[in-house]
Amino acid sequence: MAVTAAPGAGFFDSATGFAMIRGGKIDVAILGGTARRRRKMRALVYHGPGHKSWDEVADPTVQQDTDAIVQVDTVTICGTDLHILKGDVPAVTDGRILGHEAVGTVAEAGAGVKNVRVGDRVLVSCITACGRCRFCRGGHYGQCVGGGGWILGHRVDGTQAEYVRVPFADNSTYPVPAGVSDDQVLMLADILPTGYEVGVLNGAVRPADTVAVVGAGPIGLAAILSAKLFTPSHVVAIDLAPARLEAAEQFGADVVVNSGTEDPVAELMRLTDGLGADVAVEAVGLPETFELCTRLIRPGGRVANIGVHGKPATLHLEDLWIKNVTITTGLVDTYSTPTLLGLVAAHQIDSARLITHHFALGEFMQAYDTFARAGDTGALKVVLNRTGKAA
Amino acid sequence: MAVTAAPGAGFFDSATGFAMIRGGKIDVAILGGTARRRRKMRALVYHGPGHKSWDEVADPTVQQDTDAIVQVDTVTICGTDLHILKGDVPAVTDGRILGHEAVGTVAEAGAGVKNVRVGDRVLVSCITACGRCRFCRGGHYGQCVGGGGWILGHRVDGTQAEYVRVPFADNSTYPVPAGVSDDQVLMLADILPTGYEVGVLNGAVRPADTVAVVGAGPIGLAAILSAKLFTPSHVVAIDLAPARLEAAEQFGADVVVNSGTEDPVAELMRLTDGLGADVAVEAVGLPETFELCTRLIRPGGRVANIGVHGKPATLHLEDLWIKNVTITTGLVDTYSTPTLLGLVAAHQIDSARLITHHFALGEFMQAYDTFARAGDTGALKVVLNRTGKAA
Amino acid sequence: MAVTAAPGAGFFDSATGFAMIRGGKIDVAILGGTARRRRKMRALVYHGPGHKSWDEVADPTVQQDTDAIVQVDTVTICGTDLHILKGDVPAVTDGRILGHEAVGTVAEAGAGVKNVRVGDRVLVSCITACGRCRFCRGGHYGQCVGGGGWILGHRVDGTQAEYVRVPFADNSTYPVPAGVSDDQVLMLADILPTGYEVGVLNGAVRPADTVAVVGAGPIGLAAILSAKLFTPSHVVAIDLAPARLEAAEQFGADVVVNSGTEDPVAELMRLTDGLGADVAVEAVGLPETFELCTRLIRPGGRVANIGVHGKPATLHLEDLWIKNVTITTGLVDTYSTPTLLGLVAAHQIDSARLITHHFALGEFMQAYDTFARAGDTGALKVVLNRTGKAA
Amino acid sequence: MAVTAAPGAGFFDSATGFAMIRGGKIDVAILGGTARRRRKMRALVYHGPGHKSWDEVADPTVQQDTDAIVQVDTVTICGTDLHILKGDVPAVTDGRILGHEAVGTVAEAGAGVKNVRVGDRVLVSCITACGRCRFCRGGHYGQCVGGGGWILGHRVDGTQAEYVRVPFADNSTYPVPAGVSDDQVLMLADILPTGYEVGVLNGAVRPADTVAVVGAGPIGLAAILSAKLFTPSHVVAIDLAPARLEAAEQFGADVVVNSGTEDPVAELMRLTDGLGADVAVEAVGLPETFELCTRLIRPGGRVANIGVHGKPATLHLEDLWIKNVTITTGLVDTYSTPTLLGLVAAHQIDSARLITHHFALGEFMQAYDTFARAGDTGALKVVLNRTGKAA
Repeated sequence: MAVTAAPGAGFFDSATGFAMIRGGKIDVAILGGTARRRRKMRALVYHGPGHKSWDEVADPTVQQDTDAIVQVDTVTICGTDLHILKGDVPAVTDGRILGHEAVGTVAEAGAGVKNVRVGDRVLVSCITACGRCRFCRGGHYGQCVGGGGWILGHRVDGTQAEYVRVPFADNSTYPVPAGVSDDQVLMLADILPTGYEVGVLNGAVRPADTVAVVGAGPIGLAAILSAKLFTPSHVVAIDLAPARLEAAEQFGADVVVNSGTEDPVAELMRLTDGLGADVAVEAVGLPETFELCTRLIRPGGRVANIGVHGKPATLHLEDLWIKNVTITTGLVDTYSTPTLLGLVAAHQIDSARLITHHFALGEFMQAYDTFARAGDTGALKVVLNRTGKAA
Repeated sequence: MAVTAAPGAGFFDSATGFAMIRGGKIDVAILGGTARRRRKMRALVYHGPGHKSWDEVADPTVQQDTDAIVQVDTVTICGTDLHILKGDVPAVTDGRILGHEAVGTVAEAGAGVKNVRVGDRVLVSCITACGRCRFCRGGHYGQCVGGGGWILGHRVDGTQAEYVRVPFADNSTYPVPAGVSDDQVLMLADILPTGYEVGVLNGAVRPADTVAVVGAGPIGLAAILSAKLFTPSHVVAIDLAPARLEAAEQFGADVVVNSGTEDPVAELMRLTDGLGADVAVEAVGLPETFELCTRLIRPGGRVANIGVHGKPATLHLEDLWIKNVTITTGLVDTYSTPTLLGLVAAHQIDSARLITHHFALGEFMQAYDTFARAGDTGALKVVLNRTGKAA
Repeated sequence: MAVTAAPGAGFFDSATGFAMIRGGKIDVAILGGTARRRRKMRALVYHGPGHKSWDEVADPTVQQDTDAIVQVDTVTICGTDLHILKGDVPAVTDGRILGHEAVGTVAEAGAGVKNVRVGDRVLVSCITACGRCRFCRGGHYGQCVGGGGWILGHRVDGTQAEYVRVPFADNSTYPVPAGVSDDQVLMLADILPTGYEVGVLNGAVRPADTVAVVGAGPIGLAAILSAKLFTPSHVVAIDLAPARLEAAEQFGADVVVNSGTEDPVAELMRLTDGLGADVAVEAVGLPETFELCTRLIRPGGRVANIGVHGKPATLHLEDLWIKNVTITTGLVDTYSTPTLLGLVAAHQIDSARLITHHFALGEFMQAYDTFARAGDTGALKVVLNRTGKAA
Repeated sequence: MAVTAAPGAGFFDSATGFAMIRGGKIDVAILGGTARRRRKMRALVYHGPGHKSWDEVADPTVQQDTDAIVQVDTVTICGTDLHILKGDVPAVTDGRILGHEAVGTVAEAGAGVKNVRVGDRVLVSCITACGRCRFCRGGHYGQCVGGGGWILGHRVDGTQAEYVRVPFADNSTYPVPAGVSDDQVLMLADILPTGYEVGVLNGAVRPADTVAVVGAGPIGLAAILSAKLFTPSHVVAIDLAPARLEAAEQFGADVVVNSGTEDPVAELMRLTDGLGADVAVEAVGLPETFELCTRLIRPGGRVANIGVHGKPATLHLEDLWIKNVTITTGLVDTYSTPTLLGLVAAHQIDSARLITHHFALGEFMQAYDTFARAGDTGALKVVLNRTGKAA
């Protein structure tokens, strides 16, 4: 492939971020793995609590032969990124490029990368997997002790950039099936496998179950969407915000409960002849919502915690010890990514419904603002790509 | 069968409690189901917090056609009975005969009883099962909503008596296999299925696992004994009392940790290359021991709570949300009773090892005293029968 | 309840079979259990291979206190009944009333029946469960060794009659939820739990699976319908008859293969990148179709046999030993009946779609003819009731 | 590491095969991966049906960066090798070095090998795993479609040699825990995980089960040994050879049946109150023994086929369709290797009991002869190493 940019000159149009690429010259890699000539790119960089900017930074390079460099085509922002910006995740330090979700094109691949090749369109998963450690061998990639786990935008630079270095690329990226849009696949980087694995599969949702989902933000909606794969009799969404409850109905909730004005426990008991829900999914991350979940479930029921918690909760063992309950927690492992890709490719699930706003890559500051003010903007997932439009 | 006791006279020797029976005249039932002639019997009766006595009371009678009256041959005391005597279980009221574990002989059976017959030697399980409700149909007998569950010595009169009425006898008693002693089987009334189901099966113990058992009292020992059925690599017993830790070793613990002088978390990490236990079984019932369990386990590990709790615990979700842990609670269901009977009959498990003391039935007050002062007496399970000797 | 029929007179209109009942006088039972006055009823009676008739026979009576007598409101014919009529089921002898599926009204209940009461509208399941034996305790009602299993219309008189005696009524009938039609529920007597348990659950269908269903008759369609509960990516129906393949598409098959003109193995390989189906459901009952199933599946795949076989099949272990396949067989247990009732009540499944023809009870001979000539009539399930119309 | 052998001279004593290595000079590799200086080695080479010899051949070299070269310290012969020698496995062609089981020392490692290093003592598994394909990601390494699976001594040169090239070394070798002998670990290369995974885990052996093992050769004994990990009530071994039945008893069979003189079905029915075995393990590979297994099991039971079959069997679906049976087949995946290593290291399983004979590496022809004439020699597993003695 010819390299058109002059050495050292860079090739970005700082106003648009991607002008040359939009022009069709994807001059980013030498097929066969020779070093790319690029030097600089734009990225969303964390500068300590409350501070971020869309900086020009050095282009990522292959550091291990199992790395791939992926050109980011489509990227999103996670609620976790907002937590990081508040300073809640101390492992993230000044200078870190944020982001752990992307769809892109492989621009360079180390010699040890076998599954994907330069030019492949891939999903970059939020979880990086060494593929060899005890946990990876069991499919528990999120707990990888071989250098992976959740590292992108956390312990190494992430996806909110024009390029991202993906360690252990063979087990951390997934080729995108033909005919599937970036938007559909991007939701499989984190939010949908999280709702599915940590909510629905940990909760062991079964046909005819009554499933309570506490919290109808994006992750709660992903749980509702994926709970429907198992045909529960009733999905009950519980939240304080009428707009979120309305979204829950659109995503398939059969019953919605505004916990500011109604008693969710009473409602679940009414629906289940006084027994309680088979499964309660915690999708908020607060002690009160977790404790609510433990009151919603029937004897023998399950609480599947998805929420990211900053404080302990009270576990009422004086009531629960006798009730045969199961409580699970979890970081997503993304072992379900092939399953979810199959469902998306077969048009069995419409994951792009989670996306409410599109921006161009150069508009990251506005995108963060829209996402952070979801109460006002109605944002679920905001997506950034080259065009700023749905794809 | 001839009835030798004069009507209304009763036939108990008040000194021994069972003189006539010991003499070989089991004049308790008319084969074929005709009403028995007896009127009075002895039983251990609760009289409010701190008070109990070995009283003469009315003989139980068939109230529903699914009831059986069982002559109690061998009976034991549970830690729960001590809780009741402290007043911790408000549902137990003055006048209630205590006890929910026995081996005995069917003395009378209602017309609806099909599985057992007068004269059969049976295990009386701590859990009574209607056999028809939603929970019973799923094997969750402990959660029976059809009138069963844990009711003996709780909501109806129990087994610490010469006779006991067993509701839903078909699903609540088990014929004792030939060649198996009362002592072996009696441990299957509660303690062994509790350790096995609520500890080992809920904890999903697998070959090569490292299993931590917190609390080495009788129920903890039952968990150790039944964990060995799955050949874990290491069973680690944790307790404060050297005598209980010694017992734990005898029951198969490979490692013992005195949590008064050693750090159990450090020990588990040392044994598991810093990962933590695969399974931690809580067998105490205190907030601290539960919280310890949540610190002992590895990512992806399981905490199986057996302990009866009177207070809430703190659940450190700020640490646990990301660790893929599973926490289970449970009242025993006794679905495993046939399995455990099979193991005892095949000499694969020696459940009688849990018994340290034998008393005659008339010696209930001494038996309670010995059991309550286990720290001094070394009592694990104390058993009462007609002879006061092992059987 | 007043009894209007004169003792000994009977009350049937022999032309219609149900004239008086249609007139609204359900003079069938004395509430409280006193004996009913009726003497004669009409029933479809087997008279040896090739012979059946709509006879006047003696009314059934309670024989065990766990029996219920159910007035049959709505009833259907099973493919198994056709097998019986050919003489393929030697246990069925001359004089036997056929049928093992019904929805009806409890007319009389023995003293030991606790779950249902006279007047209750109930589903009569094809499987009778003693509720006490080893198999029933595990939910394997179809294998009951306590006197149940598949006995109706087989070892005892069945449901193709105005009244049927249902042994062990507590565990063999299910109250019908309010608001659910007879037609919807009737399909839960046999065909839907068979497709679901023996096909879909034994086959362990999971989201994104490719599921091949060989045979698109009524039971294959029930398998397709219930496979969709788990959101497979592709359901592939395979049959020789264009009409049945068309029906398969209407029931949710994504791909249909006419095995007379197309190669099903090639088609499955094409759909699965050469791997094969995750699950193949055998819904015919011939050696060739079973053997086809074993060729359709991928390494690690599952064959779930639903078909009733009269001859052995060849198992190509020389190919299969290395392929990690699982093959299951099964008579329905009906443990899933509560789940399916929940789904029907919640409008998550439309089981009445399986019904193509309605007849009045007195038209049993025509109904059999229509059902037996399904190739010509397009019959899937034919239903008989008081009105001869959908309900 | 110093290299003492003169370049090009080779260093083998052709009489003993390993003289210099026994002298302590392991001059096989340059730490850090520089090329080794050796040129020739000895290996057991297949030369068409009926022909094999202990040839001097070229030393293996790293071909892919994920390869490791392992010096073979201890090696064994599998029954499959005898099949190959008969010409039963056409994929094995003239010139192939046989063998798929070894314990050895890493002599050289490609740049992409991360888990093991030169000098590490490792188990070489019979299954090679790419670690990246669909099957490997699910732990189904035996079905690897990324270039692995059973390839050693089959599609690439194997372990019956002084050195072996192990492709995908990270996922195909396992470091040997300190304190564990070569003999103990060598049995984990194939026979023990095969008995455990394909027999015991596929058969879902549970505490108190009755397990029939048909065939008491080495693989049947491995199944017996590993079935005991789950504490079945009875393990019944069935074979024609008294010597093998005696061995079965030593490995833990509770009951042995000589199927030449006794009726195994009758014996199993006697032991199980007429029900049949919970699990039957086929460990022979003949149609008759497979068909026997299907007659031994109870309704709801499982047949786990381990045997390598060359011909089809008859599957009596006319009997089995109604019995709710499960039949599984499988090539070992070796996902259980870490579990089994843990059990061996914790002294919970004594796998070396399977070894009856030891030879020096140069005595391969005698070792094959002893193993092939097991009926006369009583051989179970024969092991070859540097000393010809147990280690």
